[in-house]
Amino acid sequence: MGENMEKRELINQIKVWLREAAGMIHEASTKKLTIDEKTNRKDLVTNMDREIQSFLIDQVHIYNPEAKILAEEEGYNELENLDGQVFVIDPIDGTLNFVLEQENFCIMIGVYENGVGQLGFIYDVMKEVLYWGGKGLGVYMDEQPLPKPQNLRLANGLLGVNGYLLGYNRWNIRTIGEKSLGVRIYGCAGLEMIALLKGSHIGYIGNLSPWDYAAGNVLLDELGMKYSGISGEKLKFKGREYYLGATPQAYKEIRELLDQPQK
Amino acid sequence: MGENMEKRELINQIKVWLREAAGMIHEASTKKLTIDEKTNRKDLVTNMDREIQSFLIDQVHIYNPEAKILAEEEGYNELENLDGQVFVIDPIDGTLNFVLEQENFCIMIGVYENGVGQLGFIYDVMKEVLYWGGKGLGVYMDEQPLPKPQNLRLANGLLGVNGYLLGYNRWNIRTIGEKSLGVRIYGCAGLEMIALLKGSHIGYIGNLSPWDYAAGNVLLDELGMKYSGISGEKLKFKGREYYLGATPQAYKEIRELLDQPQK
Repeated sequence: MGENMEKRELINQIKVWLREAAGMIHEASTKKLTIDEKTNRKDLVTNMDREIQSFLIDQVHIYNPEAKILAEEEGYNELENLDGQVFVIDPIDGTLNFVLEQENFCIMIGVYENGVGQLGFIYDVMKEVLYWGGKGLGVYMDEQPLPKPQNLRLANGLLGVNGYLLGYNRWNIRTIGEKSLGVRIYGCAGLEMIALLKGSHIGYIGNLSPWDYAAGNVLLDELGMKYSGISGEKLKFKGREYYLGATPQAYKEIRELLDQPQK
Repeated sequence: MGENMEKRELINQIKVWLREAAGMIHEASTKKLTIDEKTNRKDLVTNMDREIQSFLIDQVHIYNPEAKILAEEEGYNELENLDGQVFVIDPIDGTLNFVLEQENFCIMIGVYENGVGQLGFIYDVMKEVLYWGGKGLGVYMDEQPLPKPQNLRLANGLLGVNGYLLGYNRWNIRTIGEKSLGVRIYGCAGLEMIALLKGSHIGYIGNLSPWDYAAGNVLLDELGMKYSGISGEKLKFKGREYYLGATPQAYKEIRELLDQPQK
């Protein structure tokens, strides 16, 4: 079986897992959630995050017992390296939105081979729309191919930002926001990634963990978008990092403004 | 015909107008929009804003030739007073989102009698969900009654904010945001009002014009939520004002923090 056939088979499997995981969420939404605090009162985990993660890890290991896992919840959130096949999983991206809004959250899976992104999946659970694709395969909204977004300038689009960075005006974020057409805060990295993929936003500046950007980056690559750590550095896939993703033109403009002395 | 029968008849008519207006938007979305700047490059109006407003005003005047109009676009954005029956109309609330995201915008209509809110309608066009209600009638999501949101504290919910206020930390907004569970920026007053009505957010601090709050306030009243100008003053229904809407508990806490010396 060729490499592409294997990839197609894996894509189909992951789609089945995601629909099943979403089904678990829809079914449970009427029942009472168990909500625990992790590092602080704003960093929540629910039984549903844990159940979805556990379900997805089980599926991965049935598919490939050798695959490594990097995932948001307990016991899986650090890897020594990205050697071999790595599944990067966010069972519920936007847990606060999930708990408080019952919408605006995603399930995300990125598949990497020796550190190179191969496949990415972002599932908007409540809208029931799957954004997915892979290296050399294009990007799709459900089964509809997404065109490359226009290479818009900062001045011509909306910018997703992090609330802390804007409130403290770190790295000239306020100026950068003012040069854009407007800032948005969704509280869900997956939705910000989707906005970039659709060309709805021209950039996103966030404070992200590997499972927040792994899937999205595969798709951004495929559509010719740019991303990095906030200072232009390669992403570490370890711990939280400030992240910039944008159209190539907006990326260049934002990077220059980030480097200027704080105003 | 009794007053209530008249109200029911008007509600049914407005629902028909809104569905028709939304139909105009859905039909036009494939065609090219004409986009003009109003006061600055971030303040846009499209042919669609103008067409929807004109359509809605026509409908109002067929229903009641005496009714007065307060509406976002050209020639209708100021009234001497709110005497008589006044229809407050935002043909497209969130024009930037409409143009750039093709989602996350609303059509809003508030009906006032001698300055007292009688009916409110917020239509999320792309999700095709109508939030509506009236004084003494309750609030509905389509035909499903919405319960009173829990009277949550600031610390227990999400807060919608204005990007300018957060970036410049006016009125201690940063501190207020930090005391909440997180800030959100949607770029659409209607969506923020919907989040309050559903209990998804505990508060909203925005820079609003009458057509941004007229419909929402009728519905907030009906669900026991509080609102005012940012300093606690009565809303003027003239020009832009800083606005605070929240659960009674969060309203009290936010008002106290807004009044404290700037940190």
